[in-house]
Amino acid sequence: MSIEFSIIHRVQFAETDMAGIMHFSNFFKMMEEVEHAFFRSVGLSVSMQHDDIHIGWPRVSTSCDFTGPVRFEDEVELKMRVVRVGGKSFTYEVDFFVKGRKVATGKTTSVCCAVADRDVKSIDIPAAIRAKLTG
Amino acid sequence: MSIEFSIIHRVQFAETDMAGIMHFSNFFKMMEEVEHAFFRSVGLSVSMQHDDIHIGWPRVSTSCDFTGPVRFEDEVELKMRVVRVGGKSFTYEVDFFVKGRKVATGKTTSVCCAVADRDVKSIDIPAAIRAKLTG
Amino acid sequence: MSIEFSIIHRVQFAETDMAGIMHFSNFFKMMEEVEHAFFRSVGLSVSMQHDDIHIGWPRVSTSCDFTGPVRFEDEVELKMRVVRVGGKSFTYEVDFFVKGRKVATGKTTSVCCAVADRDVKSIDIPAAIRAKLTG
Amino acid sequence: MSIEFSIIHRVQFAETDMAGIMHFSNFFKMMEEVEHAFFRSVGLSVSMQHDDIHIGWPRVSTSCDFTGPVRFEDEVELKMRVVRVGGKSFTYEVDFFVKGRKVATGKTTSVCCAVADRDVKSIDIPAAIRAKLTG
Repeated sequence: MSIEFSIIHRVQFAETDMAGIMHFSNFFKMMEEVEHAFFRSVGLSVSMQHDDIHIGWPRVSTSCDFTGPVRFEDEVELKMRVVRVGGKSFTYEVDFFVKGRKVATGKTTSVCCAVADRDVKSIDIPAAIRAKLTG
Repeated sequence: MSIEFSIIHRVQFAETDMAGIMHFSNFFKMMEEVEHAFFRSVGLSVSMQHDDIHIGWPRVSTSCDFTGPVRFEDEVELKMRVVRVGGKSFTYEVDFFVKGRKVATGKTTSVCCAVADRDVKSIDIPAAIRAKLTG
Repeated sequence: MSIEFSIIHRVQFAETDMAGIMHFSNFFKMMEEVEHAFFRSVGLSVSMQHDDIHIGWPRVSTSCDFTGPVRFEDEVELKMRVVRVGGKSFTYEVDFFVKGRKVATGKTTSVCCAVADRDVKSIDIPAAIRAKLTG
Repeated sequence: MSIEFSIIHRVQFAETDMAGIMHFSNFFKMMEEVEHAFFRSVGLSVSMQHDDIHIGWPRVSTSCDFTGPVRFEDEVELKMRVVRVGGKSFTYEVDFFVKGRKVATGKTTSVCCAVADRDVKSIDIPAAIRAKLTG
């Protein structure tokens, strides 16, 4: 059974473009928004200290397919599901809905990293964090 | 032989995030930037009138794989190549380089549409436009 | 007695910059966010039809003073107050608080306009709209 | 005699909004863009090491007056002039032109700070940096 998590995002004016719809780059910001809200919901943060190391989650791959427009003031429902928690990586998918109609589906894989200034190094996901991500 | 086109994008402070690197959503904005510069280079615009219809190119799919960080003031070289000009769709890939090292590869497919207010309808790419996209 | 209106904005990762704080340009997006939420709260939209004309509110002036940093995941409280509803213009101020501490104060003046494609013309604020903005 | 410095910024699609013009928040990003290009032009960076301290320039105040629209693909000329270099502060103004017509004027004051992680403290502008900012 996979973990699922949802939020609502109200589309802001600054997120629209001259085509009269939400600019597609905001789907990626929204994917990150639900990911981070999920982390908070299980007591984590995407930018946190753990056993004296600073942990971050740079992404290695992200994609989105678009099937309908999203407009100013729309309330977009983001349904996120954890797809895979690998040794070092975390993969999730997000379905985007407006008034019950699916408008987009995105997928992101990020990697658990120890971050020290300009030095970023992938590490095994600590057991305590893994437990929270896998429910 | 495929069409190739390049631009340089200097990374701005507002494009960075608290991890000290360019926020990944800007790769998608940069992909669009090189796409639109390519359209201009062949005498087109992504938002233009053609035979009394307003033509736009909403995207249907986009993805990006990240292999290295991009930082403030980096000069990112974007190398775009046209991958496919279908009946209605346009697909291109972009390699991103910083100081000769590839940091990301992206791919986007957009669809030629007639746009009238809130009504957006896919159409066959007009021959005159197709000729310019295929070189 | 002036009209006051509040919202909470959770700071997103994409809103931070390499200085580790929210990029200052987002204060202006947040000012617009509370303005639009206020419009909705009185039954209006900043982009609406009224008596067969499309009404918009382009800004003529905006400013912000910053007194403290705002960070990732902060819950920023925006307190907006209507300062003046002129013949054609609308002026409001916003105080930004994090955990009860004021971190910024902004002010914006926008003008009521009839919008038709590329033609934008200032008009007297219609009485029905004025009544809602002045409470 | 004041220092003046200019750049051109081509308006990108992602910078437009549903009103068909460049979103006003981008005037502030552009102001920062010309400021940083000016810093580079005199051999500085807004994020740099100097005598073993990391120096940053958080803003304390910024404003912009808008007199005309800016549209997709416009080439905006930004003319920046240094207005004042105080003991700790740096103030500049920017006029924005499209095809020779002024469309906006902005003003920003930032403060020289020593930055160490979450600790940001205003300092006197070092003499070597001051010399470059005052020409």
